[in-house]
Amino acid sequence: MDYGLPALQALIEHFKKLPGVGEKTARRLTFAVLDMGEEEVTGFAETLLQVKQDIGFCNRCGSLAEGEICGVCGDNSRNESIICVVERPSDVFVLENSGQFRGRYHVLHGVLSPLDGVGPGDLNITQLENRVRDEGIKEVIVATNPSIEGDTTSLFIAQLLGKYGIKVTRPVRGLPLGSSLEYVDRGTISKALEGREPI
Amino acid sequence: MDYGLPALQALIEHFKKLPGVGEKTARRLTFAVLDMGEEEVTGFAETLLQVKQDIGFCNRCGSLAEGEICGVCGDNSRNESIICVVERPSDVFVLENSGQFRGRYHVLHGVLSPLDGVGPGDLNITQLENRVRDEGIKEVIVATNPSIEGDTTSLFIAQLLGKYGIKVTRPVRGLPLGSSLEYVDRGTISKALEGREPI
Repeated sequence: MDYGLPALQALIEHFKKLPGVGEKTARRLTFAVLDMGEEEVTGFAETLLQVKQDIGFCNRCGSLAEGEICGVCGDNSRNESIICVVERPSDVFVLENSGQFRGRYHVLHGVLSPLDGVGPGDLNITQLENRVRDEGIKEVIVATNPSIEGDTTSLFIAQLLGKYGIKVTRPVRGLPLGSSLEYVDRGTISKALEGREPI
Repeated sequence: MDYGLPALQALIEHFKKLPGVGEKTARRLTFAVLDMGEEEVTGFAETLLQVKQDIGFCNRCGSLAEGEICGVCGDNSRNESIICVVERPSDVFVLENSGQFRGRYHVLHGVLSPLDGVGPGDLNITQLENRVRDEGIKEVIVATNPSIEGDTTSLFIAQLLGKYGIKVTRPVRGLPLGSSLEYVDRGTISKALEGREPI
């Protein structure tokens, strides 16, 4: 559809680069921007620029940070002897949201994926080994996604860290809370049966 | 979820103001922006500002325009004697996309809705009457949405323009192409039966 309005078309194209946004959604979002007040749109544009300008990665753990060090690494009340390894910066916030973990994090920025040519050298792994060696770490929880690549990566990390004589664990797999057996996949069902626990 | 990163939180809030974007989607879009290149994000922000700066409403029909007059009103090859009335600027593009209509448009910027306090004075209706009087219009197609408000509005416009002795029509209602009777609502079914046509 040609709108004969170059700016409009350009904004549609920008929205389409976002994940899960197709042509129709991009059009709807663009018309919503046209309906917004000038101040609101200016604020939106400035915030986009600010996010890119202000936010980088923590020098220590690779999580998002506004300065050299992220909030978790800078918080002295956290347990210093336990590290939770995740694939992406967004995973840190998911785990923080659970309120369950009080240690520190380490973000790999990806997973091992030989098919896509991603090897250990492409991930933030050397830095993890340095931290385990230098920071007196007692346990590393590898919370990569429960996928083939995630599992390959966690296995690799467990082997790599084996020589330091620390505990390397991963979150247990089983039935998600609130799920219905009918809709849970076969693999999860068999993991859950295999690891059954007394009531 | 508190990210402890004000810029990130602000961008999530901006995305949440877009239609159909909730907390989870807003977070996903924000992390996608973080993954984008700096140039890409700058382009996105500049386009947002440009859309608001460059695009206004056509002085004649109320459609979107980069100058005083929109592309359709400025195109002398269009049929000057027929106007299609629509609710929103985006409707113009839907109709243009069908390639079926070669007249001009008139955008109401809303529909009559007594419950929401929207009366004729709040819509771009006086200008429509002026155009019918001054531009030698022979037919007005009222293509408001087939909803209660849309139908109320089309009835109001038909009565208003009655005194000019022109044709006032609306698109016929019936079964949408490619639909299945099973999934079509009762109202549409009865309209389609009522207006049945010879094969």
